[in-house]
Amino acid sequence: MSERGSGLVGLGEFGLIDRVTARLSYGPAVLLGPGDDAAVVAAPDARVVASTDVLVEGRHFRRDWSGARDIGHRAAAANLADVAAMGARPTALLVALCIPPDLASGWAEDLADGLAAEAATVGASVVGGDMSASPTLTIAVTVLGDLGSRPPVTRAGALPGDVVALAGRTGYAAAGLTVLSRGFRTPRLLVEAYRRPEVPYPAGPAAAGAGATAMIDVSDGLLADLGHVAQASGVAVDVRRDAFEVPRQMRDAAQALGVDPYTWLLTGGDDHALAATFPPAVALPAGWRPIGGVAAGSGVTVDGRQWEGPAGWDHFR
Amino acid sequence: MSERGSGLVGLGEFGLIDRVTARLSYGPAVLLGPGDDAAVVAAPDARVVASTDVLVEGRHFRRDWSGARDIGHRAAAANLADVAAMGARPTALLVALCIPPDLASGWAEDLADGLAAEAATVGASVVGGDMSASPTLTIAVTVLGDLGSRPPVTRAGALPGDVVALAGRTGYAAAGLTVLSRGFRTPRLLVEAYRRPEVPYPAGPAAAGAGATAMIDVSDGLLADLGHVAQASGVAVDVRRDAFEVPRQMRDAAQALGVDPYTWLLTGGDDHALAATFPPAVALPAGWRPIGGVAAGSGVTVDGRQWEGPAGWDHFR
Repeated sequence: MSERGSGLVGLGEFGLIDRVTARLSYGPAVLLGPGDDAAVVAAPDARVVASTDVLVEGRHFRRDWSGARDIGHRAAAANLADVAAMGARPTALLVALCIPPDLASGWAEDLADGLAAEAATVGASVVGGDMSASPTLTIAVTVLGDLGSRPPVTRAGALPGDVVALAGRTGYAAAGLTVLSRGFRTPRLLVEAYRRPEVPYPAGPAAAGAGATAMIDVSDGLLADLGHVAQASGVAVDVRRDAFEVPRQMRDAAQALGVDPYTWLLTGGDDHALAATFPPAVALPAGWRPIGGVAAGSGVTVDGRQWEGPAGWDHFR
Repeated sequence: MSERGSGLVGLGEFGLIDRVTARLSYGPAVLLGPGDDAAVVAAPDARVVASTDVLVEGRHFRRDWSGARDIGHRAAAANLADVAAMGARPTALLVALCIPPDLASGWAEDLADGLAAEAATVGASVVGGDMSASPTLTIAVTVLGDLGSRPPVTRAGALPGDVVALAGRTGYAAAGLTVLSRGFRTPRLLVEAYRRPEVPYPAGPAAAGAGATAMIDVSDGLLADLGHVAQASGVAVDVRRDAFEVPRQMRDAAQALGVDPYTWLLTGGDDHALAATFPPAVALPAGWRPIGGVAAGSGVTVDGRQWEGPAGWDHFR
């Protein structure tokens, strides 16, 4: 039992909610915060972007691999990245937390700190939520966002001739997860990338402003997610392997663990990079680099050929 | 295994999401529905009301007491009522569903049908969500709503001299739950009230329009929820027992089961009635009836005295 917590059994649902909400602070978009039947959030252009992601212990995280704060960062990042991938700015999070009754209350408070800290990096706030006891630790996060009067950038607008570009890293989190799953705790670069993804949030609205034709958050793995873009847009996407640098720590870890590092780079999820397509005449905004091209056809290729190996991640398989 | 479903193991996450979203339809507030990184929903007055509720199997529902469609209705109702209790009109739901991998896909489809059907009664739509395998069947729902240019009605505005009023039923769902928990399946009136609450959604915006000073969704039980209003408003609330009629089926069930029916009426949750306070000069809108009054002080009384018995419901106790 944590020194801070008497556990949920002792505090009760309302007591724990009070402890958690006492730790929060609110950005200017929050017109009414937690404590009532619902929150009220500003939606300046009369539209709101909304997305939900759920994390289940043992499937999306493990308490022996990540601290509560880390898990909060990662749960928030997965959602905030979805809003950025529409070209929008996140404004608010709502969190449904299901926790084993004997888990010390300090765990939930640390989780809330992580969620709030990650949201604060983009000026967003935790505005509401719900809590229940459950045998399975589960965190469902809903994010709201503001499009800033631009149309949303969907997966469906890529055109033949477009440039495929990437903002942020891929493969780092997947490599970190492999390292942890083999019982190691280093290299830190990879393990920390898994625990707290570094998401290029501002690159989303920047891409929308520059005229990106399609955009997606890389959560299932780059090739799988570009596959979603190819399918929704009715086009073919090709990725160039030489657009990816294998950092030293990743090369060393790959060698030690007997893994092809390009499997991490091209099919690893959880870094929440953003992938987008731009008309060829567009100068890519800061943070974006070209990694391939769009052509007539269907499917995703690497250097013109089908990728041999695992394509992505399906949480039911 | 259902005749419709090969189960989640066979379909995978994307396959099941496709099956579920194929069943949905969208109201005018849905600017972009499921299938992208996020949905886009209209927020006509540049604000959005948002709330999240989570239901955990064995704690908030049991599959042997309610069908998947019923559980969908109830999960949606719990959320839609929170928006109505702010004086707003629900526009959209997002659903995070965690399901045991061997559960037949027909179950998730039926759940989605129930969620969508309940949302459709107020013109709202399911616009997004997420799905994961989990050992514990868990449904987290987020609801969005539109205030129609009115200020939100919070729990904090009740004033001494106000009338306390109720829209909808209390105690029916709690009675139905007691009946089910004792192994009975009738009276149908009570069991069905538990399975599919009849929520007076339009009474929320109507109360806001009429000048309600405070409002709350009765989910923890009338006395507990009026306690939240009393605390947030810094007032005392008194409820009159004679404002409540005990219907015949409830009286019979109470007698057979050895329960005081007023325990159901005054402390039972899950019907999602709305309770509000109105200035004494206001003519109550249709669907509302007076049940008590507000005075200076603190706490909740029944006929001027403290209520002896269970006060409400805390999911951790």
